[in-house]
Amino acid sequence: MQIEFLGTGAGSPSKQRNVTSVALRLLEERNAIWLFDVGEATQHQILRTTIRPRKIEKIFITHLHGDHIFGLPGLLSSRSFQSGEGALTIYGPRGVADFVKISLRVSETKLGYPIKFVELTDPGVIFEDQTFKVVCDKLDHKIECFGYRVIEKDHQGELQVEKLKALNVPSGPVYGRLKAGQMVELPDGRTLNGKDFIGAAQPGRVVTILGDTRKTENSVALAQNADVLVHESTFAKGEGKMARNYYHSTSVQAAQIAKKAHAKKLLLTHISARYTGKLANDLAYQAREIFPATQVVNDLDLIDIPFDGVKTK
Amino acid sequence: MQIEFLGTGAGSPSKQRNVTSVALRLLEERNAIWLFDVGEATQHQILRTTIRPRKIEKIFITHLHGDHIFGLPGLLSSRSFQSGEGALTIYGPRGVADFVKISLRVSETKLGYPIKFVELTDPGVIFEDQTFKVVCDKLDHKIECFGYRVIEKDHQGELQVEKLKALNVPSGPVYGRLKAGQMVELPDGRTLNGKDFIGAAQPGRVVTILGDTRKTENSVALAQNADVLVHESTFAKGEGKMARNYYHSTSVQAAQIAKKAHAKKLLLTHISARYTGKLANDLAYQAREIFPATQVVNDLDLIDIPFDGVKTK
Repeated sequence: MQIEFLGTGAGSPSKQRNVTSVALRLLEERNAIWLFDVGEATQHQILRTTIRPRKIEKIFITHLHGDHIFGLPGLLSSRSFQSGEGALTIYGPRGVADFVKISLRVSETKLGYPIKFVELTDPGVIFEDQTFKVVCDKLDHKIECFGYRVIEKDHQGELQVEKLKALNVPSGPVYGRLKAGQMVELPDGRTLNGKDFIGAAQPGRVVTILGDTRKTENSVALAQNADVLVHESTFAKGEGKMARNYYHSTSVQAAQIAKKAHAKKLLLTHISARYTGKLANDLAYQAREIFPATQVVNDLDLIDIPFDGVKTK
Repeated sequence: MQIEFLGTGAGSPSKQRNVTSVALRLLEERNAIWLFDVGEATQHQILRTTIRPRKIEKIFITHLHGDHIFGLPGLLSSRSFQSGEGALTIYGPRGVADFVKISLRVSETKLGYPIKFVELTDPGVIFEDQTFKVVCDKLDHKIECFGYRVIEKDHQGELQVEKLKALNVPSGPVYGRLKAGQMVELPDGRTLNGKDFIGAAQPGRVVTILGDTRKTENSVALAQNADVLVHESTFAKGEGKMARNYYHSTSVQAAQIAKKAHAKKLLLTHISARYTGKLANDLAYQAREIFPATQVVNDLDLIDIPFDGVKTK
């Protein structure tokens, strides 16, 4: 599991940062990529990565401002052009389906795969299967905006092969039955309980990816004990009034959320074009005074999310 | 007057070529930029040029396929964000207004300038003022597609100062009246006709920019005696059947149009991603066998359009 930042800027593209898109790479976990927001030229950024558009299984839109959605029609078209045939689900606020459908209709684009739209109205679980669950909640932005908490389900413990070998249990199909937790009678008459030979479950990881927002308690809930919190930092410390007026956050406010939520890592994105070079680094220094494990991300940054095994969800 | 190519690829963006957009730079002529098509990430390409979005006065859309329009909403938003306040006119097939309006409505984008839409149905003059005239006609593409002929009006001749000096006519306000073609009585009693002292008018230039199309007689009419013809060359010589099936042209077909129209220069664009490096150069060699003054353009190519003064329109 990795996060790859396809665009880390705010409002308009600049030479330094494209507008917003975040890829959650779940290639090992489910052979899929999930995108969060698709600003204009997200498909161009993808050309600079190893992401294959046909692997994009789900797209989560935080809100409908242009810098978060104007890349959707082009990406969807190119996914089809590049032989993407698998179904795609798009989650987002009411209106996202209209935008996509009308863009495709006007341009007479025929996609070679089905799109399912899930328009969000209320907080709660929006997706769940055997490996992942996704919860959304509302943030505090000028227009309706959602944050997403992606919860990986716990991984089953590994079979303790060394322990079995120490007991002279010969390898073979019996190992599979033990791993499944079954009671097994061996040829020599002994009976073993599989549950005694399975290691501790590996707690799944939690990644919280928020949209544009003022500081809000809902962000704390979404980010509770998260392995990674992706939070906007459109403005710097000291610009709280401006942040409030434009419905955004400062670096310090993002850090306060991460601290209160007991997140493990804070990634600051959606950086205003006014902060380049040292000024962008300053955002991280400001946040670290409150939440040390903070990083300001740049376009095409690829960040690994390791298991740490000590978390509660 | 210059043409700057912001995107020269076909269908999907590639690392080599962005999707279609052409800027006609009329900075000396009217302190304005006109765009022809706005594929996704056109605003990103503009960041790599000296073009200021607020100088964009008119946008001409050839057809509504996504690779020609998906950059419109973002460009319009950024033009507003970057203090563009002047009115903008968008010409294009029916549906272009819907696409723009719905994109702006869904994203709750408020522009700081008015947009006028001129949806095209019939061939003919779509714009005319004292310096330029624009004519459109239908091309032969899978969906309705227009080509544009931009006609610069003739420039008035210069006042022949040397001739006046040879006649010992002293400079002063009288020169202005002579340049305006008036009859002027000098202090010494001589009467001069301004028309006798004005050089030949400078014929205006003609630039023809076509959308995606099969080879069609309408292209010949639009490009008649043009200083520059911008024609698609999605395919190479020998791919005529494929070009026909996909409603596109080959390099050779574009050259045949340029030759028949007596154009002065042919610029090939909308190059399929299959042609890179030498294969792209080959398109030009193929065309030059029929029309020598041919060039395959690349993204960000800037091509000057000089006066030549020998043309009829």
